[in-house]
Amino acid sequence: MSEESRGAPPTAFVPGHVTGFFAPHPADDPARAGSRGAGLTLTDGVRVTVREADGPTVTLDGDPISMPPVETVLDGLGVADRARVVAESDLPLGTGFGVSGAMALGAALAANDRFGCERSANDLVTLAHCAEVAAGTGLGDVVAQARGGVPIRLDPGAPGDGRLDGVPSTRRVEYVTFGDLSTVEVLAGDTDPLVSAGDAALSRLVDRPTLSTLVAESRRFARDAGLLTDRVREVVDAVVDTGGEASMVMLGETAFALDAGLTDAGFDAEACRTCDAGAHLVPADDR
Amino acid sequence: MSEESRGAPPTAFVPGHVTGFFAPHPADDPARAGSRGAGLTLTDGVRVTVREADGPTVTLDGDPISMPPVETVLDGLGVADRARVVAESDLPLGTGFGVSGAMALGAALAANDRFGCERSANDLVTLAHCAEVAAGTGLGDVVAQARGGVPIRLDPGAPGDGRLDGVPSTRRVEYVTFGDLSTVEVLAGDTDPLVSAGDAALSRLVDRPTLSTLVAESRRFARDAGLLTDRVREVVDAVVDTGGEASMVMLGETAFALDAGLTDAGFDAEACRTCDAGAHLVPADDR
Repeated sequence: MSEESRGAPPTAFVPGHVTGFFAPHPADDPARAGSRGAGLTLTDGVRVTVREADGPTVTLDGDPISMPPVETVLDGLGVADRARVVAESDLPLGTGFGVSGAMALGAALAANDRFGCERSANDLVTLAHCAEVAAGTGLGDVVAQARGGVPIRLDPGAPGDGRLDGVPSTRRVEYVTFGDLSTVEVLAGDTDPLVSAGDAALSRLVDRPTLSTLVAESRRFARDAGLLTDRVREVVDAVVDTGGEASMVMLGETAFALDAGLTDAGFDAEACRTCDAGAHLVPADDR
Repeated sequence: MSEESRGAPPTAFVPGHVTGFFAPHPADDPARAGSRGAGLTLTDGVRVTVREADGPTVTLDGDPISMPPVETVLDGLGVADRARVVAESDLPLGTGFGVSGAMALGAALAANDRFGCERSANDLVTLAHCAEVAAGTGLGDVVAQARGGVPIRLDPGAPGDGRLDGVPSTRRVEYVTFGDLSTVEVLAGDTDPLVSAGDAALSRLVDRPTLSTLVAESRRFARDAGLLTDRVREVVDAVVDTGGEASMVMLGETAFALDAGLTDAGFDAEACRTCDAGAHLVPADDR
């Protein structure tokens, strides 16, 4: 346990992450599996505290929840029988914000600190990434959330295998959520259109790494890959019609926009910002 | 220019960075040159604003200053004849806090935003890293400052060549400064003892990536490499005698300590924290 945490259980903050476009990349080794693509990390995120406990328990916003990636992380650290994971989220689960990845990564950071596991940052990210991939709940959220900012996932996989860059920007971000989409179902279908549309979008973003490119390419990807739902399409079109920049969150029935794009188009949107910091432990006096 | 910046010139914040130990790694290609080692990034840092100007001018805390790495960065972005760089630092120059690296990296981020250069984050870090290495003012600060947290530099060089990990911790940090040491002089001498002591320290930190290991190995490195000055030795010994953790900053006549180590030992120290975020643009309303 870190000296500073003595008395107060360690808490990690993990930013939310909305993927704009992606190309899934399966592999037998989960450390090499993942996705290429790009998205935005958000100051709205998840706080994860790890406490001592008799048995493994995970709660999200006060409710017990089954969360296989979190359990896999605790197993990997050898503390599954001793840790209780308490998560509080600004963001809804299952709507494309990477909440499950955030819980896995936050549990890794906080449990490592709480139980003196002495793992490195890359080890903890790898553990959480592999747990997410194995559970099928996400492909690129964990490595993006570990980086913060506006991550470009050039090559899939955990640190050491994957390769990241970023759009060097900070910006207000708005979002509206109508419900969930099943990541598992989408990835179980024909993923060839995702790969070709995702790789094309990535190539154009690498040529011109700006937020405007990211959002425009996300919109084109959502259409070309056939993932845009009617409800999100209406919202995105309304934002674009008022001169804003918006697209669909992959994968959730959720629209996001830069600046006040959704508000300006008349929607009752949540607002936050791109998150400067990647996942990190929170000092006891900031909780 | 980003839409949000219109009207207000862009400002970047770059954390300070104290190196605890290092092994210099020269190379003909500056993108492959640098150092292995480890250190702490600090919430005390440098704010860099880029404004339009007729000629190249750099100021630090209001005073004009010659800063070759900054000029090289502006040249690399093709804006040397148009940019004026205004830096404000919480930290003294030349005392081991990476202020010159922070100015180069901050200028890269802010100028890219101001003039719409459309470079990626890795490109900007590479530009600043190479400018620092070419000027001989630093070897590993820029890549560490781009990452934030508690960076471990596993392999030297810019993104793509270098390889980073980190100690997953957050902590209060204190420091006292007595003056500068010449990085150029130290690196012009026999660097074999630095390489052997630095690599040995790195290997032990990788085995056990905690802040306590980092500081203990930094202390051992400073002694083994023959860099510990009498004045800093007295301070570090006093902190250790009162049960604290401290070492010397590479390269400055500066001591740093975890928690309230210096205060507890009776010194009048500056206090900050490890910085969760790497170098980033600052929203206009946070300046």
